[in-house]
Amino acid sequence: MDRQLIQAALGQEQGDLLLKGGKMVNVFSGAVEEKDILIKNGRIAYCGQCSEKDAKETVDLRGRYLLPGFIDAHIHIESSHMTPQAFGRAVLQKGTCAVVADPHEIANVAGEEGIDFMVEDAKKSPIDIFFMLPSAVPATNKETAGAEINATDTARLLEKYPSFPGLGELMNVPGILFGDPEVENKIHAAQGRILDGHCPGLGNRELAAYAAAGINSDHECISAAEAQEKLANGITVFMREGSSAKNLDALLPVINDYNHSRICFCSDDINATDINAHGDILNCIKKAVAFGIDPVRAVEMATINTANHFQLKNRGAIAPGYIADIVAVSDLENFTIESVWKNGIAFTDANAILKEQTFGTFVLKNKNISFPQANGKENMRVIRVLKEQIVTAETIYPVAERKDHDIANLYVLERYGKNGNIGYALIEGFGLKSGAIASSVAHDSHNLLILATNDEEARFAAKTMEEMGGGMCVVENGTVKAAMDLPVGGLMCTEKAQTIAAKEEELAKAAAELGIALTSPFMTLAFMALPVIPKLKLTDKGLFDVDLFDFVPLYF
Amino acid sequence: MDRQLIQAALGQEQGDLLLKGGKMVNVFSGAVEEKDILIKNGRIAYCGQCSEKDAKETVDLRGRYLLPGFIDAHIHIESSHMTPQAFGRAVLQKGTCAVVADPHEIANVAGEEGIDFMVEDAKKSPIDIFFMLPSAVPATNKETAGAEINATDTARLLEKYPSFPGLGELMNVPGILFGDPEVENKIHAAQGRILDGHCPGLGNRELAAYAAAGINSDHECISAAEAQEKLANGITVFMREGSSAKNLDALLPVINDYNHSRICFCSDDINATDINAHGDILNCIKKAVAFGIDPVRAVEMATINTANHFQLKNRGAIAPGYIADIVAVSDLENFTIESVWKNGIAFTDANAILKEQTFGTFVLKNKNISFPQANGKENMRVIRVLKEQIVTAETIYPVAERKDHDIANLYVLERYGKNGNIGYALIEGFGLKSGAIASSVAHDSHNLLILATNDEEARFAAKTMEEMGGGMCVVENGTVKAAMDLPVGGLMCTEKAQTIAAKEEELAKAAAELGIALTSPFMTLAFMALPVIPKLKLTDKGLFDVDLFDFVPLYF
Repeated sequence: MDRQLIQAALGQEQGDLLLKGGKMVNVFSGAVEEKDILIKNGRIAYCGQCSEKDAKETVDLRGRYLLPGFIDAHIHIESSHMTPQAFGRAVLQKGTCAVVADPHEIANVAGEEGIDFMVEDAKKSPIDIFFMLPSAVPATNKETAGAEINATDTARLLEKYPSFPGLGELMNVPGILFGDPEVENKIHAAQGRILDGHCPGLGNRELAAYAAAGINSDHECISAAEAQEKLANGITVFMREGSSAKNLDALLPVINDYNHSRICFCSDDINATDINAHGDILNCIKKAVAFGIDPVRAVEMATINTANHFQLKNRGAIAPGYIADIVAVSDLENFTIESVWKNGIAFTDANAILKEQTFGTFVLKNKNISFPQANGKENMRVIRVLKEQIVTAETIYPVAERKDHDIANLYVLERYGKNGNIGYALIEGFGLKSGAIASSVAHDSHNLLILATNDEEARFAAKTMEEMGGGMCVVENGTVKAAMDLPVGGLMCTEKAQTIAAKEEELAKAAAELGIALTSPFMTLAFMALPVIPKLKLTDKGLFDVDLFDFVPLYF
Repeated sequence: MDRQLIQAALGQEQGDLLLKGGKMVNVFSGAVEEKDILIKNGRIAYCGQCSEKDAKETVDLRGRYLLPGFIDAHIHIESSHMTPQAFGRAVLQKGTCAVVADPHEIANVAGEEGIDFMVEDAKKSPIDIFFMLPSAVPATNKETAGAEINATDTARLLEKYPSFPGLGELMNVPGILFGDPEVENKIHAAQGRILDGHCPGLGNRELAAYAAAGINSDHECISAAEAQEKLANGITVFMREGSSAKNLDALLPVINDYNHSRICFCSDDINATDINAHGDILNCIKKAVAFGIDPVRAVEMATINTANHFQLKNRGAIAPGYIADIVAVSDLENFTIESVWKNGIAFTDANAILKEQTFGTFVLKNKNISFPQANGKENMRVIRVLKEQIVTAETIYPVAERKDHDIANLYVLERYGKNGNIGYALIEGFGLKSGAIASSVAHDSHNLLILATNDEEARFAAKTMEEMGGGMCVVENGTVKAAMDLPVGGLMCTEKAQTIAAKEEELAKAAAELGIALTSPFMTLAFMALPVIPKLKLTDKGLFDVDLFDFVPLYF
């Protein structure tokens, strides 16, 4: 209880800031009306007719629309390649004042230490970051991850971090349905907190069982029918519009007068280029309004609904006592952002001072790359990349016909200095004609992924990455053509979104010069090591058939 | 996490009960569709097509509509004159499966001991009762109450009862606006919990200040404009329909597609007669639908909205994992209740076995009733009762003219054995021609109130009440004409609602025979000692002018 705030509301004490003459969007009443907004000590004191004397400073906002700061319901900050500080600076400019983040990537890389880093860095971020404790580290035991968070760790970490709203996306659906004691114990440890879901395509009795376990959100809906069924089962639907998964077109038709308060927007995975170009949650609002959703309702799903779902008090609306996170936009169609106030302070780039940071976890114990020979075997198993998808197919070719197809070598090098494993596979569809590309962003264990025409190019890529300490590069003939350092866990850096966007463009351009025909080659590459998405994937332990859930031979 | 529940959802284990063929109201999606409901261990496992083999027992519900059990957002159970057990039995038959109760009355009578009694008795009640800790005990220091709960007690009691959702209605509005340290400390002690409001007529900057203090509900709106302003300020509106305060007609027009999720129904104070005749929350639903509100939306305000506001998990909807509180009704217009399941068990009167209980706090230290004489003063100050209102007026008459007016004696006897105070007043408008009526239900301190033609009748009423240990009576000429024992704190008993309703009718009839012309004489009487509602009231300490906030002489 802030006595000064109450006194400012009553007009007995001067406010800090008065936003005057703007049209305020009220997510509680649905009204869009001219209301002056009086701010004191970072909170809203009063919304209504004020005079300039009411505050030390007045900003004229006639003609502008004022919205509550946006809240992202589910994001992996690491996917932006920005640290929490850098990410905060990037999204705050686009109106996002708070996010609910699952530090799943850094947890796979560096475990508790990685989470600690995120929590500490988030304190210096210009936005508010609420962390969910990752529930699936590692995703499988079919690869070497940097760390593991078991049920005992989960209990300890939830106690260590009482402010964490709950458990991050519970991806182990079979574990929940069929009673894996490890998953059960994690859920037990999170009793009384929020359980975030992740259940793509789940329906009918299995969905009921998943909901009966107490999980009450999902961000994986890809069809209207799926979202409707989940909503009817009491599951809050986070409609996702990220850099690769774009679900709004399919899901927006679901929103109606009954269910709207249980729908939120999220980005899940979004890169710096998209944040910079369109915004994260701002992009969701604009798309929803363009589709025909009432602007106030679109704003509601970007603000108060998310606050309510996660029981985040005093945010997500412009009302007395609420945190003064406010976005001024040109109109309710284009939503061109003109100013953003976080805790009642106008954002300027100078607010966000970043430090150079490193967080090293990049150790290659074994660099003896040597692609295996067929040794008389007749057939080879090839991963086939599908355009703009993270699922792959499997193709069988006679070994003798390799040169007739668009086939490159794929390598996964264990990068935590643990066992020096190297996995080898053949991959079709990248279009690589020469050189190599490499990345330490490789879901979910983030080992070093290299796509190369031959071992020599792969060795040079590995050496380059080792010198960088993690990141992404394009190399050819002993020359680095493009590179982006990601010195924080091999996943993130402290650069601005614009800088990262420019580097990503250079990397894509250099990759195209090697013959690569895909739009987002590094994004596609990053999923080639994820052994939970079908069909054929490569981990540091070998070639893995996700449908069989077992390793398979390269040659046979 | 209940493994059997999950297995029942999956069809791997038999459910306990199958409600088959009914039309289920889904407050999440707005749908009203035929869905079988499978129940296991008191919770809902699955909603959808089932076969009889799925459960041990099947109930055919073709043609019926199934709603989630109702939740009352704000009630003082004591006002029903039923103990929590008896109250639970009464309202459960009317579809109410949970209530958020403020034990303000018993707390004024018996403090912590009274709250303990309610908590213990609630455990045996067939419904779920969530208690808010009363925040204004006593309401003023202008009367002798049975107990006091100060800020230190508040902190201790909240710690003692971690399951209490928060602090009960914060009636001390000036204390909040102008910083009474006692109120501030109570709010501070409740940090992180829910603060229930009570701010009749508050608007504009004062309302903003009240909201800025963190109070986010109110049940005192009497006009549409008041409700709209409160909603716009982020305050959840509990629309009230009780026995005396009936606000739905005025407030229902406020409900729209934007604000509906922040509106709940409550009864506040409701007597056994009304519960028995119309139901409590059921009555709100029926009135809303009769007014033209969509039935699903009316049900939403009676169920999930209240659960959400108080963060009561897994209740307020029919969905997997939710508590199996289900109401079967004939249709969505008359809402005739056919069956109620609480925790998956069908309610029958035999479920609710009550014990005879007493909770004695009725001690009259001084019975020397002797109405004061004018002693030469010319004028007398008379309380004027206004029909069906709890406010009163003041009339000044010459002492000599008493017999020309409808004036009776009013007595307040301190009844906690503390100081033996007796307050005296004159009151106009009851129509009492002979005898006396008396009641130990006298807001908020619940001292003994007696309305009598003379001291002798008053003395006999006091003696009668002492023998009863609290309650209500009508006496005349040394004979008890009608009486209702309220042996639990002088406020409650364990009788059935029907029995209480019958006794209330007898009391009213007997009172009418004494000449009393008011519809609810005991209800009106109960507010004659409440020194926070204008204008002229009587406490054990004397005649009190609420507007002056001071005692005034009877004669002058």
